[in-house]
Amino acid sequence: MSELAQRSELPVPTIKYYLREGLLHHGEAVGATRAKYDDSHVRRLRLIRALTEVAGMRLDDVRRVLAAIDDESLTWHEAIGSAHSRLAPPVKASESDAERPRVDALLARHDWELAEQSRHRDALAGALASLAALGHPPSDEVLDTYAEAATLISERDLDSVRETDRAEAAEHAVVSTLLLEPVLLILRRVAQENSSRRRAK
Amino acid sequence: MSELAQRSELPVPTIKYYLREGLLHHGEAVGATRAKYDDSHVRRLRLIRALTEVAGMRLDDVRRVLAAIDDESLTWHEAIGSAHSRLAPPVKASESDAERPRVDALLARHDWELAEQSRHRDALAGALASLAALGHPPSDEVLDTYAEAATLISERDLDSVRETDRAEAAEHAVVSTLLLEPVLLILRRVAQENSSRRRAK
Repeated sequence: MSELAQRSELPVPTIKYYLREGLLHHGEAVGATRAKYDDSHVRRLRLIRALTEVAGMRLDDVRRVLAAIDDESLTWHEAIGSAHSRLAPPVKASESDAERPRVDALLARHDWELAEQSRHRDALAGALASLAALGHPPSDEVLDTYAEAATLISERDLDSVRETDRAEAAEHAVVSTLLLEPVLLILRRVAQENSSRRRAK
Repeated sequence: MSELAQRSELPVPTIKYYLREGLLHHGEAVGATRAKYDDSHVRRLRLIRALTEVAGMRLDDVRRVLAAIDDESLTWHEAIGSAHSRLAPPVKASESDAERPRVDALLARHDWELAEQSRHRDALAGALASLAALGHPPSDEVLDTYAEAATLISERDLDSVRETDRAEAAEHAVVSTLLLEPVLLILRRVAQENSSRRRAK
């Protein structure tokens, strides 16, 4: 246990709490008071740290993401989709109904299908509604460019999944999805700064 | 004042607070107890709402973004850059030093220049360090694809700035930068869901 704490850089009480809460699987019992932990425990703890500390997720949401990763009955696609649906960025969903047709038109233009109950549709409509309410609705050209960029990125994301082990692959997908988000947003700002400077010359 | 509250959908005490705090410029005095407010006040209040409610910014940071927009001595580029630097996504900067060379190499490959003290460099190094610590460092191919997508997006973003009024243009840039971030992240997830489903077929 103390070795596990060291390797995961988490305090022992936190690890015990995760064990009690079912976020971490138990180790193999070795005698009455000792248990054996392996790489899978270290990896799981690192994943929980990433989700809580870096992505700022609440434990309830972490639990559901982990459940999706661990659920062998789900296909990869379902597991990733299930994890995604818990990661909707904070957008207001109010007044989003008016933007539903635009969202549906955008999805159709890019030949994208979403599950009927996908949260993405609401999240997107909500984000567009916020922009419209502020007097800055994005044009179809802007949305299409974003969609093309998103496609470019997602194809590369999938190409980079090389793990053969299902749990590792699902973990990789979740970690990349979450942790590459700040990377993408920062790169967009860097690119904007540079494009803007170049045009100013 | 009550008309302003109605048009901005903000309560009167909140507006008075913004006036006291200097976030909103005063109206033209009409008699002892009345003031005249115009479209510029409505627009500013909507911007404050967007920054606080949608982007979740603290008032201190909002104040600095507004100061950048209002500072006539800054060029557009500087104003936008100044606003950007306050919007760094939440990434851990610790252990980021090791990733500095990768960041510099990435910037060089894309012919991007950053101000020496730009927060983007740290933010990016921090995000890469987090991914590396979790055992999922992105490859150069992934980073390059993200950078290309970011360039595609930023060029379109700049194309869409049509306002001739400086304040309006700066406002548009800030609002679009912030509020199109959730749009981009949602589209990336939609695209991933679809790319993943397509490959599973």
